[in-house]
Amino acid sequence: MNEKFNELKKRLGVVSDLQRAGAILDWDQQTYMPPKGAAGRAEQAATLSRLAHEHFTAPAIGALLDDLADEAAKLDYDSDEASLVRVTRREYAKAVRVPPALVEEISRTAALALDAWTQARTDANFALFQPHLEKTVALQIRLAECLGYTERIYDALLDQYETQMTTAQVAAIFDAYKQELVPLVQAIARRADAVDDAVLHREYAEQKQWDFGIEVIKQIGFDFASGRQDKSAHPFTTGFGLNDVRITTRVDKHFLPSMLFGTIHETGHALYDLGYRAELERTPLAGGATLGAHESQSRLWENLVGRSRGFWKFWFPRLREYFPAQLADQDAESFYRAVNKVQPSFIRVEADEVTYGLHIMLRFEIENELVERKLQVADVPAAWNAKMQAYLGVTPPNDKLGCLQDIHWSSGSIGYFATYLLGSMFSRQLFNRAVRDLPAIPAQIENGEYAELLGWLRRNVHTHGAKFTLDELARRATGEPLQAHAYVAYLKQKYGDLYGL
Amino acid sequence: MNEKFNELKKRLGVVSDLQRAGAILDWDQQTYMPPKGAAGRAEQAATLSRLAHEHFTAPAIGALLDDLADEAAKLDYDSDEASLVRVTRREYAKAVRVPPALVEEISRTAALALDAWTQARTDANFALFQPHLEKTVALQIRLAECLGYTERIYDALLDQYETQMTTAQVAAIFDAYKQELVPLVQAIARRADAVDDAVLHREYAEQKQWDFGIEVIKQIGFDFASGRQDKSAHPFTTGFGLNDVRITTRVDKHFLPSMLFGTIHETGHALYDLGYRAELERTPLAGGATLGAHESQSRLWENLVGRSRGFWKFWFPRLREYFPAQLADQDAESFYRAVNKVQPSFIRVEADEVTYGLHIMLRFEIENELVERKLQVADVPAAWNAKMQAYLGVTPPNDKLGCLQDIHWSSGSIGYFATYLLGSMFSRQLFNRAVRDLPAIPAQIENGEYAELLGWLRRNVHTHGAKFTLDELARRATGEPLQAHAYVAYLKQKYGDLYGL
Repeated sequence: MNEKFNELKKRLGVVSDLQRAGAILDWDQQTYMPPKGAAGRAEQAATLSRLAHEHFTAPAIGALLDDLADEAAKLDYDSDEASLVRVTRREYAKAVRVPPALVEEISRTAALALDAWTQARTDANFALFQPHLEKTVALQIRLAECLGYTERIYDALLDQYETQMTTAQVAAIFDAYKQELVPLVQAIARRADAVDDAVLHREYAEQKQWDFGIEVIKQIGFDFASGRQDKSAHPFTTGFGLNDVRITTRVDKHFLPSMLFGTIHETGHALYDLGYRAELERTPLAGGATLGAHESQSRLWENLVGRSRGFWKFWFPRLREYFPAQLADQDAESFYRAVNKVQPSFIRVEADEVTYGLHIMLRFEIENELVERKLQVADVPAAWNAKMQAYLGVTPPNDKLGCLQDIHWSSGSIGYFATYLLGSMFSRQLFNRAVRDLPAIPAQIENGEYAELLGWLRRNVHTHGAKFTLDELARRATGEPLQAHAYVAYLKQKYGDLYGL
Repeated sequence: MNEKFNELKKRLGVVSDLQRAGAILDWDQQTYMPPKGAAGRAEQAATLSRLAHEHFTAPAIGALLDDLADEAAKLDYDSDEASLVRVTRREYAKAVRVPPALVEEISRTAALALDAWTQARTDANFALFQPHLEKTVALQIRLAECLGYTERIYDALLDQYETQMTTAQVAAIFDAYKQELVPLVQAIARRADAVDDAVLHREYAEQKQWDFGIEVIKQIGFDFASGRQDKSAHPFTTGFGLNDVRITTRVDKHFLPSMLFGTIHETGHALYDLGYRAELERTPLAGGATLGAHESQSRLWENLVGRSRGFWKFWFPRLREYFPAQLADQDAESFYRAVNKVQPSFIRVEADEVTYGLHIMLRFEIENELVERKLQVADVPAAWNAKMQAYLGVTPPNDKLGCLQDIHWSSGSIGYFATYLLGSMFSRQLFNRAVRDLPAIPAQIENGEYAELLGWLRRNVHTHGAKFTLDELARRATGEPLQAHAYVAYLKQKYGDLYGL
């Protein structure tokens, strides 16, 4: 087995190098690339994507996987070897269904669409992006047909981001969640004035915001020897290896949470990407599990830590040193309340925890309609705005604040959004278990200490890399399948307290 | 022909994409990569290099080139088609002699050596770099043996940077040049006090230096929609396509020329990389001709323009607006004299035009001795310092100011340095011809106008891309073979005037 296993790893290492080179090109495009560079970059990205796909789907890899399957099945399911063969076989079976030319076309389209989306978003002009989105949707439909599905076309796309989860399963989870959430949103709406967040909209100098964010994430545990933070239109995290993970953020002078929680959110992703065991490097197991698992990490740090009372008990005095005038009339409690104000808003990444799920459901529904050809791309702005009105009672004044706000469609990522809400649910499940194992965690958070919580996540989540599906990971880390009730209970308790319900 | 020609271009496009992706990874490593990222980056760079080499040396490309050779030979020598087949055949014949494993090993070694060199240079500690340089020299010797040569092993390496030029030819040019130069250096030394450059060593705020540099290169014609400037340990230019060329610079608060002339120098390279015809994109003709040709562009803008009396007549008043206190006792003439002070110094890239050639000859000799195994890597610092003493009468106080100053050896670029001096010579040959064709150029420089000069260079040099050898290019652009006398005459005249000889 050893020789074939090493040959497999060697071949997968080349695929990993090509994928990571592609990620570096994408990072550069979103951070530093000069405006006219997009066309050339599209060719380079397309070539790397196609070659990565060709190398991964090489018949030699298929033969090695077949040869190794029986032996791997005899090993411990969780072992590096068994997991590598199992996960790679699953991904291989999917990849060989997709022609290299389609992979290349998707990549080239994405690089050009990213450029168009950036401009369209800046100008709040959907027409600039529409032809690119039309091409993207058509390509994603072709991709889904290649990948295959039994019930719904969306299943094929969803499976790329949330392995072995179906559209019907997600819809059922979302529906049950909605049942619980709607009464909570309504109860909060009746007491909307109980929380005031005017303080967040004062003027905060950009450099000071940046510096405070850096200070916070260093203390959380982000190691700048193995990563960096830059600015981009849409915050994201990308990893090029165990010692090079990049996050980006954006700074809004008149809305403090944009930088603050964006930075902590991406740090959650980055810590995950920096936490797998070195033995998994340059294999398909290097990195996080599913995107739901990934979002559990980002949203745990952003919300369960970053928007907690204990967190601000520690950090508010420090923040006031950066902004003494702006925060003169505040204390830790009033600031904690401000950053948790519930109100219907336009921008998903800046939404409060309670309404956040509605933003996700809207996207989940629109994406389903697009790939089922029930909705035309040209009608997306109207459909978006109608759903915003129906779910949140607000209508975006322009498409920058509406259907142009997210980068995902420009990169062809249709099927992705559901993982945000699944991850939010999983985050509370994890956090509760961590606190049960290590009851000092809440007190530590009040003291600005995160090492025990991070250590628990490293041991129970990060270390596994991409070995498991979200449900497998949930069972291993918490002893239970993935479930929503911990998250619902958390929201009810926290916001019941905040709004005196 | 058309079908095969298009098939050739398609295959070469993939090679170009891989090479450019590798260049992006290298740019990132030198500008933004976090410190611990080097090991992972080495693997990625090695994989891209090996794949680019494998794709380029594919038998299918050899067959296409063979099939196209006869037809191409009937076309105009300078045409796109004939040039592409001719140049690609020449490069192909060399490339197929080098095993992919060696290409990969050279690339991996370079990525790690770059990291070690950066640290060694910072610490002025040659021992940190020595094992990497030993490996690099050994690999370059293996490379030269693969490439083959008739007279000297150095010929094989030199030919990579200065096509069809031999070590003996370069040595002859350098020897003749030295004959002319030594009396000039001696005459200047006797009147060393005639020029005072104390003004350059005053304190200049880094951001203001940066801003002034940007202003200058914008006016020269660098288009920030198609490029950008960042900071790096060693200034360089790299191009990822016709609309994405990056330059880097470094800023020394106590030595103004470091940023100033470094920035203009790299802009000269960048303008060249942005100037080939779009039809040559994604082929081996996209980019500059030889490195000597490339240096002719950088050193033309840096020295023939940037260190001219006319240039400072225009720019000195503007520079004084940035630094009124530091420049209060200066005028355009005194500043022009200061930036042209001739004095033996440690750092090549900051050397004056007269002594610059001696820095090159030193490297040319040491490299020859290294690859002929007459000099051990461990003895490089001593050999360097001895030659510095012999040629320039100064001994570097540490290796940061000595043999660790240049990035080239860390990237495996042995055989490169000679092109700097050849390029300097060619720059004057070009400039004289441009002024003969467009006599208004000197007056335009006095007015901060560069469009006619740049236009002449575009038409006579840039547009050709990599079609020609340095000598072929010289004959087309100036009507003469490459020669040194214009450069020698320029130095004698300019410095005779400055030093009252």
